[in-house]
Amino acid sequence: LVAEDTGQPSPRAGSARETLGLFGALDTTEGIAAATSDRAWLQALLDFEAGLALAEAEAGLIPAPAAVAIAERCQAANFDLEGLGRAAPAGGSPVLPLIRALMDQLPAEAADWVHWGATSQDALDTAMMLVARRSCRLILAELDGAIQAGAQLADRHRSTLQVGRTLLQHAVPTTFGLKTAEWLSALVEVRTILTDVDAHRLAVQLGGAAGTLASLEGSGPQVVGLLAERLQLAEPLLPWHTNRVRPAQLAAALALVAGVSAKVAQDVLLLSQREVGEVSEAVTEGRGGSSTMPQKRNATGSVAIIAGYRRAVGLVGVIQGGMAQELERSVGDWQAEWTTMTELLRLTGGVSHQLHQLLDGLQVDETRMTENLALSRGGVMAERVALRLTGSLGRAPARQAVEEALRRSGSQGTSLREELAEDPEVSRELSPAGLDELCDPQAYLGANEVFIDRALAQRPGQSQEHA
Amino acid sequence: LVAEDTGQPSPRAGSARETLGLFGALDTTEGIAAATSDRAWLQALLDFEAGLALAEAEAGLIPAPAAVAIAERCQAANFDLEGLGRAAPAGGSPVLPLIRALMDQLPAEAADWVHWGATSQDALDTAMMLVARRSCRLILAELDGAIQAGAQLADRHRSTLQVGRTLLQHAVPTTFGLKTAEWLSALVEVRTILTDVDAHRLAVQLGGAAGTLASLEGSGPQVVGLLAERLQLAEPLLPWHTNRVRPAQLAAALALVAGVSAKVAQDVLLLSQREVGEVSEAVTEGRGGSSTMPQKRNATGSVAIIAGYRRAVGLVGVIQGGMAQELERSVGDWQAEWTTMTELLRLTGGVSHQLHQLLDGLQVDETRMTENLALSRGGVMAERVALRLTGSLGRAPARQAVEEALRRSGSQGTSLREELAEDPEVSRELSPAGLDELCDPQAYLGANEVFIDRALAQRPGQSQEHA
Amino acid sequence: LVAEDTGQPSPRAGSARETLGLFGALDTTEGIAAATSDRAWLQALLDFEAGLALAEAEAGLIPAPAAVAIAERCQAANFDLEGLGRAAPAGGSPVLPLIRALMDQLPAEAADWVHWGATSQDALDTAMMLVARRSCRLILAELDGAIQAGAQLADRHRSTLQVGRTLLQHAVPTTFGLKTAEWLSALVEVRTILTDVDAHRLAVQLGGAAGTLASLEGSGPQVVGLLAERLQLAEPLLPWHTNRVRPAQLAAALALVAGVSAKVAQDVLLLSQREVGEVSEAVTEGRGGSSTMPQKRNATGSVAIIAGYRRAVGLVGVIQGGMAQELERSVGDWQAEWTTMTELLRLTGGVSHQLHQLLDGLQVDETRMTENLALSRGGVMAERVALRLTGSLGRAPARQAVEEALRRSGSQGTSLREELAEDPEVSRELSPAGLDELCDPQAYLGANEVFIDRALAQRPGQSQEHA
Amino acid sequence: LVAEDTGQPSPRAGSARETLGLFGALDTTEGIAAATSDRAWLQALLDFEAGLALAEAEAGLIPAPAAVAIAERCQAANFDLEGLGRAAPAGGSPVLPLIRALMDQLPAEAADWVHWGATSQDALDTAMMLVARRSCRLILAELDGAIQAGAQLADRHRSTLQVGRTLLQHAVPTTFGLKTAEWLSALVEVRTILTDVDAHRLAVQLGGAAGTLASLEGSGPQVVGLLAERLQLAEPLLPWHTNRVRPAQLAAALALVAGVSAKVAQDVLLLSQREVGEVSEAVTEGRGGSSTMPQKRNATGSVAIIAGYRRAVGLVGVIQGGMAQELERSVGDWQAEWTTMTELLRLTGGVSHQLHQLLDGLQVDETRMTENLALSRGGVMAERVALRLTGSLGRAPARQAVEEALRRSGSQGTSLREELAEDPEVSRELSPAGLDELCDPQAYLGANEVFIDRALAQRPGQSQEHA
Repeated sequence: LVAEDTGQPSPRAGSARETLGLFGALDTTEGIAAATSDRAWLQALLDFEAGLALAEAEAGLIPAPAAVAIAERCQAANFDLEGLGRAAPAGGSPVLPLIRALMDQLPAEAADWVHWGATSQDALDTAMMLVARRSCRLILAELDGAIQAGAQLADRHRSTLQVGRTLLQHAVPTTFGLKTAEWLSALVEVRTILTDVDAHRLAVQLGGAAGTLASLEGSGPQVVGLLAERLQLAEPLLPWHTNRVRPAQLAAALALVAGVSAKVAQDVLLLSQREVGEVSEAVTEGRGGSSTMPQKRNATGSVAIIAGYRRAVGLVGVIQGGMAQELERSVGDWQAEWTTMTELLRLTGGVSHQLHQLLDGLQVDETRMTENLALSRGGVMAERVALRLTGSLGRAPARQAVEEALRRSGSQGTSLREELAEDPEVSRELSPAGLDELCDPQAYLGANEVFIDRALAQRPGQSQEHA
Repeated sequence: LVAEDTGQPSPRAGSARETLGLFGALDTTEGIAAATSDRAWLQALLDFEAGLALAEAEAGLIPAPAAVAIAERCQAANFDLEGLGRAAPAGGSPVLPLIRALMDQLPAEAADWVHWGATSQDALDTAMMLVARRSCRLILAELDGAIQAGAQLADRHRSTLQVGRTLLQHAVPTTFGLKTAEWLSALVEVRTILTDVDAHRLAVQLGGAAGTLASLEGSGPQVVGLLAERLQLAEPLLPWHTNRVRPAQLAAALALVAGVSAKVAQDVLLLSQREVGEVSEAVTEGRGGSSTMPQKRNATGSVAIIAGYRRAVGLVGVIQGGMAQELERSVGDWQAEWTTMTELLRLTGGVSHQLHQLLDGLQVDETRMTENLALSRGGVMAERVALRLTGSLGRAPARQAVEEALRRSGSQGTSLREELAEDPEVSRELSPAGLDELCDPQAYLGANEVFIDRALAQRPGQSQEHA
Repeated sequence: LVAEDTGQPSPRAGSARETLGLFGALDTTEGIAAATSDRAWLQALLDFEAGLALAEAEAGLIPAPAAVAIAERCQAANFDLEGLGRAAPAGGSPVLPLIRALMDQLPAEAADWVHWGATSQDALDTAMMLVARRSCRLILAELDGAIQAGAQLADRHRSTLQVGRTLLQHAVPTTFGLKTAEWLSALVEVRTILTDVDAHRLAVQLGGAAGTLASLEGSGPQVVGLLAERLQLAEPLLPWHTNRVRPAQLAAALALVAGVSAKVAQDVLLLSQREVGEVSEAVTEGRGGSSTMPQKRNATGSVAIIAGYRRAVGLVGVIQGGMAQELERSVGDWQAEWTTMTELLRLTGGVSHQLHQLLDGLQVDETRMTENLALSRGGVMAERVALRLTGSLGRAPARQAVEEALRRSGSQGTSLREELAEDPEVSRELSPAGLDELCDPQAYLGANEVFIDRALAQRPGQSQEHA
Repeated sequence: LVAEDTGQPSPRAGSARETLGLFGALDTTEGIAAATSDRAWLQALLDFEAGLALAEAEAGLIPAPAAVAIAERCQAANFDLEGLGRAAPAGGSPVLPLIRALMDQLPAEAADWVHWGATSQDALDTAMMLVARRSCRLILAELDGAIQAGAQLADRHRSTLQVGRTLLQHAVPTTFGLKTAEWLSALVEVRTILTDVDAHRLAVQLGGAAGTLASLEGSGPQVVGLLAERLQLAEPLLPWHTNRVRPAQLAAALALVAGVSAKVAQDVLLLSQREVGEVSEAVTEGRGGSSTMPQKRNATGSVAIIAGYRRAVGLVGVIQGGMAQELERSVGDWQAEWTTMTELLRLTGGVSHQLHQLLDGLQVDETRMTENLALSRGGVMAERVALRLTGSLGRAPARQAVEEALRRSGSQGTSLREELAEDPEVSRELSPAGLDELCDPQAYLGANEVFIDRALAQRPGQSQEHA
């Protein structure tokens, strides 16, 4: 009896956040906007009321025909969303006017049993969890897409040499495959975390006025169980009116999703700078252009991800900072949660969508990677040479020899290899062939293959061995 | 030529945030929602384009008839807001599609001069400032109302005794007038700060592609001045594309407004607890009721203020944390500002409105104040007695005598005065009349009148002497 | 070979954060201060270097005698902490000077193998995890103490009637046992979360210059495994230099611990207000006094918890907001983590300690609970009466009858029961005995016992059935 | 009588935060560490007590010899800082034990008048303001140094061509002088803001137990004035115990300082990337090296600035989010301020110092700037050409012609100018000399000189005309 069709934007539109407006398409998708819209909230509130009535009927607390009649009216389309919103301030939430409106649509013998024994917070918290559930499904689907795309990049580019950059300076060689494997690994981690929260921590709320469920006389716990089953949410051990671990955990998980997405976007932005040019976002018709400069191409997807992440972090802080809720119902911290969580889901949904798109379409310029790796004329192999020479020369002399070769290479425009060959002490230790091998980036990739394979194996559905 | 009618919600509705939806009436008012709506942003963007064209015509950069034609089309009603929003992602903002749509409505000889020499950020930053200006006016008006109401309370209750509570425990007597004077003083401070930001820091943005205004050849600075005049915004010395002091200052000022409002709300919530009962929010028909408990009356206005404040603080952090913007245009921090600032204005507007309502209707129960002051049976006068006895007995003996009297008063249910009279050492120092006077809260109010008068004199329009 | 004695403050003191200073005893304990001190960090860095050398020797990468010699010097007492700190800015961290100082203490044949193939971030990240591990153990122990104390309160007070307060107004009866059971349940939840992070997410870091471990040639993954075993940290699948899910998860878990603690403290503060007086913090000699008012007793433990929580939330935001780390090593976000995480551990440790103390010593005044429950002269039973009358009168008339009785009770100082008895319609439905039973708070506790038993069973070591 | 020597680190060391420890030199300077140390706080608390006694003697409230005796003992060196800290938890702050310790050092006739009529918060708030004052002076001096260095760069490089980069892509030409002028302008703005807060908002706190100053009988306001004069802090109109506008304003001003510094550091980091190479931090002996890679040079100053900024933002949120302080003294939000503000001052001091150093030593590579500007083979002039051709061809055809030329230039490796010359339509409009001029970056700098001159004129001590 629970309404199924809450995911679509209403054709009648008209209410807040139902359409994307001027900026919304930069933040999120139509699907996520719909799943987090006021109409989705309205339906979730009604799903609670329907589920509650049916569960109470099953427990023998209210008449079954009343429950069926209530559940049948619990469709968002039957209600004037804007009118409910306008009536919300009197009671501090839209639940009171919603109950009144629902009762008005029912015969007295059914109306009397609407919202039986529940408190407004029961409806609002459960609705928040339903909205979260429906949004998490969309977010997880986008993450799966991003993981799939990331895995393909990691596998395809496992031998694509690229310079590793630490503190934005050239360090040692790596591969683009390993970089994407690291993205992939982080994405799988946050997918696991969000999946876990989705599966086990999104719970029904039902405590009645002050958490005793006295209003349901002896049947409280039974009704909680039945309601949880109907709404496919977890059954909590106790009401959690002012225990906000669940919302805070969900918020933290969403922050991780946004954070990992932002890490990828940050890398893409840096690698797609004019002077670097190693990757670029997919060129879509009309996308990334400038209002005034014909030659420009902007990484708008990455920018949207960073922007979404920054905003998400601010919202998470509101929820994490709102856990000291007063006695049996809070005066402010709880009321700050509803729209904060909604916006957080909306933004994280947008971020994960953008990430999926970004990875799906990422353009890789292997030539530029090769060219950039060569910029230091072998300088990126300095670590290897110094380590190798340590055995024979000792650490300090080895490092000194390499540093001097680097200095000459820098001032004379020669390669590190050439300058090393000029050094009699080095030549004594290393044959020309040995030097060639030492200065070959391809031969200095360490556990590149192992790490890439591990990241690929870490994907959902693959076997796992490590933490 | 600048459109004046941006403050009203469109009768056609349909776009995001234009209506209050399910939760919006808890957050803000229709007026503030309209001033911060997507339609208000659209109009502000158009105001920029109109103002720019007219300023450029005045500077001789573009033909005057073209400018007039452009300005005439710059009415939000002429544009499909949702369509612009859908087209925004390609260019990373709604400005590109807006310019195209504006050009499409004009003959070529005018269309060619639309957005002449400007960059998208010029339009968006200026529009944000216009939206801020219009919202600040509403916020300042609410603050003025709150200040007016607070002043009346301070004056009316300058002799209304109340117990001062520190760390939620009874401390010494104060008056409800002084408490409201302290609210008032804080409100005047934040009004001054916001007024200052509004008057001097909301500035036009015009820098062209990278801040040189090269696109306007030699006339850049002149056009900036003319545009500032037209839009009645401040003229910046330099473009501020990646100098975000202005938005961060505005955000901080709004946080102060919300913070001071929340301080008042926090006090009202504590004072209106069942066990305290000294104040209550105005009883409005149907307001503050419970979905299930007939006897309850909730302080929904104060709750909304606290909730709004908590959310505002999270948003301010996004803007303050987004100042490290990259080179000549940011990749994410800037794009996170638009809706963050919009939401911050919307919430602060709602908070200031709720505060105004709260203070306008605040119910004061002087009887309960008197009763609560008496709860400690004179204990709140302990400080005074100890201070007075210090002169004769010395500090430690004085404090000890008072502590012993308090202990006996506590265990025997007598008053502090009675127990002090029982103490031979105390009686030696203090006559019964002296004891009476010492234990009279009315006689222990210190600078109550001075401070209240100062707070009243601090209001706008009164003379000021202190910092 | 890993040093064991890192938990004690050095008798030589002298370095930052080693002593509690002027404010530290308000924030944390000596034990936690020691576990998070600069000296503890120094030892953790040395534990990494010792463990790395031994693991590399085991893998055959460096000579075993060199490894043993290195490990033997890796005691904090062998180093000039302040000197290392002064030398840190040149390289951006204290690792470079530490390596140099360690090498200086060793013969060349050992010195050459110090820090072999590792990068500074390997040492710092692993050290952060070791500091976290040692701090988490202390935090978890405090949580266990708090859980134990909470369980005793829940069990002892399962029949102690108290009024449930929603939005700070009287709602319906509950028990103090249920309130503490809800605290307990939340505490068990966060204990589980932190235990999980401690056990599975605190991992070794070892990636070498750019995450390939090329410097360890083919033995990288083996060394990672050996090092993890030695340090008893998790072995990561891949290096996580710029994948900051682990620190962000840890930070979020700590925020939950602080948040749940703050919820308890908030309740204690509200319940210990002068006008409520239902609980109070333990009276310790000299604790909670006022500098000027002899009669005052302040809830300093609860205050410290709230203050610690507020500060912790700000720190968590820094870590959650710092996940977009650049390419193979970050330029700022990573460097902001070290002291932020340290301070977060320090504050959460202090908060959990205060909570443990608070619950251990909590004073409960059952008389005041009874008196406060009676303040509404039966008003807290209004819900129950209205629900019961709904069956016979219908919902609206039932509620109306109760509201009228409440109004008369309010204006005439009578009880709700008296006024209900006066109402002919009510009397028709309810006998005097029925009314008595309906108005008996003891009979309106719903699932109180079930919920308390569940919370008690949820403790570690008990069997569990629900989410 | 106020102690002057609080700015130096004690040679005896020993207490928290007095030395820089392992990480402190990365965060701040010895001078700022000293100004924000626990010892500095102790001295500031003693300055309050000394100033209060002397002011009260002047007002005739306490005996002058007692005041002099009190003031003479008010030197930090007379107190056991660690002992005071250990005694702090009992009373919730170090003030109570400090008063006791001070009294213990005095004859009874002086001891009795210590802290006369004040409350702990009076001492702590005033001390916080004194610590802020002393720290702000150091921060402002660093800002002045940074402004001086920035002005020199702006002036010296007013003709140094550089490519303007928007969204990290090449946009149009600018100069390095203009970029530094924009930094300069932002620095001057935040200097003005902080100077204003320093001069007018750092105020004495004196309200007594609950803000009435009843303890000073009729002389309260007079004593406040005298105390303010002695401590050279502003005199507040009313006590501000729970009006936290002042701390929040100070925190916001510090965030602006850190934010603008971070903007500069962000730019330096991006411009000093290997592939860009336009600027670099000063090479200091041993600075910026890598533990493993001989060839690396890291921008450690910029990194420290970004890290400090990120941390500062988290701290500011704690203070801005802590304004809803309860009634006459807060239960947590206030207590969270002390160390948060201290750390914020410490970090902002470090950030401003690093910025000063960074700008003082910034190395500019004009050759690389020229090379990078040329990377697009004229593409950065596309905007100009398109604008010029609009007049003759119309906007869309003009843009199309330029886009086609760009495309050919891109695919054939020719310059934009060459390809434009190939276009018959373009050649018709533009002579070769006209094309040359149009494609000359030097000729497309717009208001470069005007803006640089304005920024230079904006410096303190110069005349000002704009907002």
